[in-house]
Amino acid sequence: MSKLVMKFGGTSVSGIDRIRNAASKILVEVEKGYDVIVIVSAMAGETNRLVSLVGDVSKLYDAREYDAIVSSGENASAGLLALTLQTMGVSARSWQGWQVPLMTNSTHGSARILEIPTQNLNEKFLDGMQVAVVAGFQGLTKEGRVSTLGRGGSDTTAVAFAAAFEAHQCDIYTDVDGIFTADPRLASKAKKLNKISYEEMLELASLGAKVLQTRSVELAMRFKVPLKVLNSFSDNDGTLVCDEEKIMESKVVSGIAHSRDEAKMTLISVADRPGIAASIFGTLANKGVNVDMIVQNISDDGRTDMTFSCPVDQVDLATVTLNEAKNNKRFNYKELVSDTEVSKVSVVGIGMRSHAGVAAKMFQALSDENINIKVITTSEIKISVLIDRKYVELAVQALHDAFELGANA
Amino acid sequence: MSKLVMKFGGTSVSGIDRIRNAASKILVEVEKGYDVIVIVSAMAGETNRLVSLVGDVSKLYDAREYDAIVSSGENASAGLLALTLQTMGVSARSWQGWQVPLMTNSTHGSARILEIPTQNLNEKFLDGMQVAVVAGFQGLTKEGRVSTLGRGGSDTTAVAFAAAFEAHQCDIYTDVDGIFTADPRLASKAKKLNKISYEEMLELASLGAKVLQTRSVELAMRFKVPLKVLNSFSDNDGTLVCDEEKIMESKVVSGIAHSRDEAKMTLISVADRPGIAASIFGTLANKGVNVDMIVQNISDDGRTDMTFSCPVDQVDLATVTLNEAKNNKRFNYKELVSDTEVSKVSVVGIGMRSHAGVAAKMFQALSDENINIKVITTSEIKISVLIDRKYVELAVQALHDAFELGANA
Repeated sequence: MSKLVMKFGGTSVSGIDRIRNAASKILVEVEKGYDVIVIVSAMAGETNRLVSLVGDVSKLYDAREYDAIVSSGENASAGLLALTLQTMGVSARSWQGWQVPLMTNSTHGSARILEIPTQNLNEKFLDGMQVAVVAGFQGLTKEGRVSTLGRGGSDTTAVAFAAAFEAHQCDIYTDVDGIFTADPRLASKAKKLNKISYEEMLELASLGAKVLQTRSVELAMRFKVPLKVLNSFSDNDGTLVCDEEKIMESKVVSGIAHSRDEAKMTLISVADRPGIAASIFGTLANKGVNVDMIVQNISDDGRTDMTFSCPVDQVDLATVTLNEAKNNKRFNYKELVSDTEVSKVSVVGIGMRSHAGVAAKMFQALSDENINIKVITTSEIKISVLIDRKYVELAVQALHDAFELGANA
Repeated sequence: MSKLVMKFGGTSVSGIDRIRNAASKILVEVEKGYDVIVIVSAMAGETNRLVSLVGDVSKLYDAREYDAIVSSGENASAGLLALTLQTMGVSARSWQGWQVPLMTNSTHGSARILEIPTQNLNEKFLDGMQVAVVAGFQGLTKEGRVSTLGRGGSDTTAVAFAAAFEAHQCDIYTDVDGIFTADPRLASKAKKLNKISYEEMLELASLGAKVLQTRSVELAMRFKVPLKVLNSFSDNDGTLVCDEEKIMESKVVSGIAHSRDEAKMTLISVADRPGIAASIFGTLANKGVNVDMIVQNISDDGRTDMTFSCPVDQVDLATVTLNEAKNNKRFNYKELVSDTEVSKVSVVGIGMRSHAGVAAKMFQALSDENINIKVITTSEIKISVLIDRKYVELAVQALHDAFELGANA
């Protein structure tokens, strides 16, 4: 029997009515003849409640206990969804991570999936089980402890199940209609995409389009799992994230992404010697600073300026880390300048590879609105710029218009 | 290393402050040198919240899913208590039922404990673990599903661990100071008992003294586990429930128990033939009516009256059941009379066995207060009467005085 994986996030199961709604979407797929594996998050708010209880006990907690505590939310929602399916006459049961078992490494709090043996679920499917409701976000270590995959880990759980069971597709149910050409709150003409490639989705996910977790898209790309983003609360067709080859006419630019709360930090007058970048960014990475864009200015008389961006809430951590390293003489710089009022805006598109002039068109559109570009980085399928935060809406709209993303395909 | 089992109920862990309080009581025992096994309930209110979610989905639920859902409350409190102990420098970790594993049969919702292997916990104790915080109330079936032991099952979990690990003692922390000679709300002179025998405690537990679950006392008696009832919120010495032989001077009467919401039902003019009682009470038991006292009046011309008591909220069920059986001609009776305004009052004491006159003294004390006795039953260590509900306080006080339970020992 062909397998289908469906994933429901916290807002899709945040009460009995919504659980019933999710169950009715599952029933449709059961009636099509699929063996369905459902991955479910905790009811919205529940994980936050549990995380906050842990924080009340201790800021420096044992991650193994954190995992045992916060994973309890998914156990409840998985059971409730299974019960609801049973009331509709569907043969369903809940599976906790250790029952599958979804095996992970022992990095508690952000564990990596090692293996999902298919035997236990497949036996039950053969016995007549129609739906396996699996508690997302959690797994089992070889030491027999409960692990969790980190925030958003239910998306990753879903894709991993789809890969392990060679599912026809992995449907991710959320509270939005799909992936848009830009954030509809910023660009009123933003359109839902019917299809997008893994590569583009990866750039969008990591650029702040919060619909899918980056890790889950990476995993889907590696195992060629067709991923569909759907709205729990409408019958919209959603957006299919799939292999580039399956998209007949890829546009030059698929979408405009933005990430509002960025900061730009510049180390002024760093010694320009081999290994200096490795030393600076290695030090920051060790302390957990999430460095995004990196730009090195042209060296002048053996000194250089090094600029990077990071989330605005990591500026203090980055500052302390860099000052410490300077005091310990790991590297030297004259001054550290922070700008915490910047945002990142990006144009993303597979078609960019074969089309020249995208960057020029982007810069012209921003220039026409008198928006100053502070930092530029590019990849094969993406161009990103840092700009003053106050211009972010204007920039997204201008770029959306310039690349004619609101036009009918 | 000598083992100690400590159990904390829902009100003893119903917030971070109370969890800290429980942890400080555990720390005292760790410092005495015990290997401590802590059994913990869900935070007060949490199990009710989960049970009510299940009820919202379906009244006729799959008990396996019910168990998976409601057991999640204990997983959270066990982790939180373990974390709190760690902040005090204690080497503690949480254990979910399946990690121990506490093996049960497959009667989901009210499973019986089959076995508690000691190997996993003992290995960790040898490795330096000082406290194992075990999620109470839950276990694992041989099918690999989560089971629960039924309401109050954490007491039973605690006693079962004490038996399996041959613990020095099992301390049950509650929100009262111990076992009293009567309910202090009814008898102002009620005194806390320092010791009470298992047999007496069993009679008290099943008579409505809600401090300990009956099943846990039975288990403690069978395995000779010394059981101590203590208050989480005071430093009172509590009450030790132990073998009769360890109580030097047992009083004739240890305490006065009462159960307020009883009903008396009488079947008038039943054919007095062999097997009639088995037929009536078998029929009631099959429908789940919890029959307590049974009295058969002296037979007159081949007909008899049969009287029994049951909880007042089961009167409708009993009435329907008996009428159905009459219609189906399983047995016959002339009339069914219910009195839903009665309560049960009992005197309990091991010393009763060797002391005559306890019943006479009890009946005289009630008579002196003009309280009419409706039904009487006796066991070796207990005499119970049904009386009008409006006299229950008066009866408890009168009996407490008559047996001088308020006097200093």
